[in-house]
Amino acid sequence: MERFDRYLPMIESEMRNVTRGEDDRLNLFYGMMHYHLGWADEHFHPLDLHAGKRIRPTICMMACEAVGGNPEDALPAAAALELLHNFSLIHDDIEDDSRTRRHRSTVWALWGVPQAINTGDGMYSLAYKALLGLQRRSMPQDLILEAMERFSATCVALTEGQYLDMSFEERMEVTAEEYLHMVERKTAALLSTSAYLGALIGGADRETAALYSLFGKQLGIAFQMEDDILGIWGDEEVTGKPVASDILEKKKTLPVIFGLMKETSNGGSSPLWDMFRQDEITAEQARKAARILEEYGARSYTNTLAAEAHQMAMAALEGTGIENEAQADLRALAEKLLRRES
Amino acid sequence: MERFDRYLPMIESEMRNVTRGEDDRLNLFYGMMHYHLGWADEHFHPLDLHAGKRIRPTICMMACEAVGGNPEDALPAAAALELLHNFSLIHDDIEDDSRTRRHRSTVWALWGVPQAINTGDGMYSLAYKALLGLQRRSMPQDLILEAMERFSATCVALTEGQYLDMSFEERMEVTAEEYLHMVERKTAALLSTSAYLGALIGGADRETAALYSLFGKQLGIAFQMEDDILGIWGDEEVTGKPVASDILEKKKTLPVIFGLMKETSNGGSSPLWDMFRQDEITAEQARKAARILEEYGARSYTNTLAAEAHQMAMAALEGTGIENEAQADLRALAEKLLRRES
Repeated sequence: MERFDRYLPMIESEMRNVTRGEDDRLNLFYGMMHYHLGWADEHFHPLDLHAGKRIRPTICMMACEAVGGNPEDALPAAAALELLHNFSLIHDDIEDDSRTRRHRSTVWALWGVPQAINTGDGMYSLAYKALLGLQRRSMPQDLILEAMERFSATCVALTEGQYLDMSFEERMEVTAEEYLHMVERKTAALLSTSAYLGALIGGADRETAALYSLFGKQLGIAFQMEDDILGIWGDEEVTGKPVASDILEKKKTLPVIFGLMKETSNGGSSPLWDMFRQDEITAEQARKAARILEEYGARSYTNTLAAEAHQMAMAALEGTGIENEAQADLRALAEKLLRRES
Repeated sequence: MERFDRYLPMIESEMRNVTRGEDDRLNLFYGMMHYHLGWADEHFHPLDLHAGKRIRPTICMMACEAVGGNPEDALPAAAALELLHNFSLIHDDIEDDSRTRRHRSTVWALWGVPQAINTGDGMYSLAYKALLGLQRRSMPQDLILEAMERFSATCVALTEGQYLDMSFEERMEVTAEEYLHMVERKTAALLSTSAYLGALIGGADRETAALYSLFGKQLGIAFQMEDDILGIWGDEEVTGKPVASDILEKKKTLPVIFGLMKETSNGGSSPLWDMFRQDEITAEQARKAARILEEYGARSYTNTLAAEAHQMAMAALEGTGIENEAQADLRALAEKLLRRES
């Protein structure tokens, strides 16, 4: 077990406690959630897949510990963040028409779109149920309400980001600025809130909590850019997705935005534009697009911006002036995230 | 304007205040919500359709006033309840494959399933944002947290109920008891919470609030049974849905459950069973099923149970010992709901 996996058993147990029906007639409903979370196979037999990396709850608990709090106090928020994240994955898989995730069939692919929509809604509902568990910890009520405010604003931001991301697929011209505006909502908001809530619950002052919030936000931006790179150049064996899958889906990720802009400013031939103007992009074309983008320097451009965001995340951590084991773990986790392969 | 429409302008204004993006780039996202709520046409031009009856927020505010509270204090909860209800409608329309609602195209029929799923998620997020507005009213924090607990439990119940309802479509044998177990979650929970939150916010004691909760629950059960009757025998012109639409969708509503049970206990011929065993039910068959069910007495059976639930709702109101205008309005609204035609 890696050092920063030490919170995992607690996180899983907190999540399991809220992901449970009071009635046997609801076993299948909760079973679909357990399947998605990696606790059951598709026949609802118990399983322990460690399907998710549980990055968000881990960051939340580390931030809590780093500012001197008892990380267990952050468990309700940690579970809520992971459930919220997974609700969004269940719905994203429907919206993106993705039949597999982490080498397994997605919920909609197994049980159909109607049940998958509702299972996602159920998991979203459980996220709030989990968060309200903060009341069991001896914590001031105004702090609990502040956590709920932040959590709720994050939920709104997530859906705004998802709207923007989907709308980009239908538009040709998307700028890098619009991309960032989207990523701040779709990815960075939740990571930012994960670090913020941990610090808040751990008793940090406003200024310190704001720095953890900034750390999470910049980490989220770097994380998304890294994801964009994996979505084009990731190893099929490792990611579990087809080669250049984001191009197949015509996603306007940062490398693609860079490549399209480059062709526009160059004048001359525009193989990428021609491809993205088609109704469908074939697997062969997608592989070709990946090569073209690499030649344009889209990969190194994205890598550079990701590294900048990563540095800003580290500077925010540094700015807190805090130095202890948990803080070092946060730093190490951030490093690991930027060197991941799936 | 009817007497119990007096809260409507306040409710609409409270809902509008939370259903608004901070950024022009999100206009379409919020526009889809405005469309669904009857505030815009499909080109996002302003409209004032009074598309919904806003029953839940009206009950919430009436209950608040009836127990001696200031109904405006209940506005954040009222808006939250209506947004939650409408989120569930947007998703239900996808899950049920319904292209029209209240004589208008549904969100998914206009903008596709992916955007509709996400628009529903957005409205769900705004429901919590609305509820947190209780903090702007001078209200004890423990009361706000209690309201959030109840709201969250209701959200979970809604998705459980929807799961059960969908699973019934795939099962042949469903009992009246299972039906009630489903309806308590899918329909009654939200109406129960509407009345409960109004009473709670209005300052009612536990016992009184529990009676309003029971009133809402029984009203919800009666309401769903009435809905079941409209779904089979409703006037197409008034409901805006095809004749016997619930039978076309093979819904196991109470009249159908009664009819199927009757054929089972009778032995002999079983035209209804034969129909429901088919993959698809035609419009002609659905009309025939409506006639058969009427002959079996399924309509009067359902009417009788609805009347009983209605009486229990009234008895709960009576049990509070409260008599004033708002209480009389609650009674009148309940009467009106049971005599509705759409």
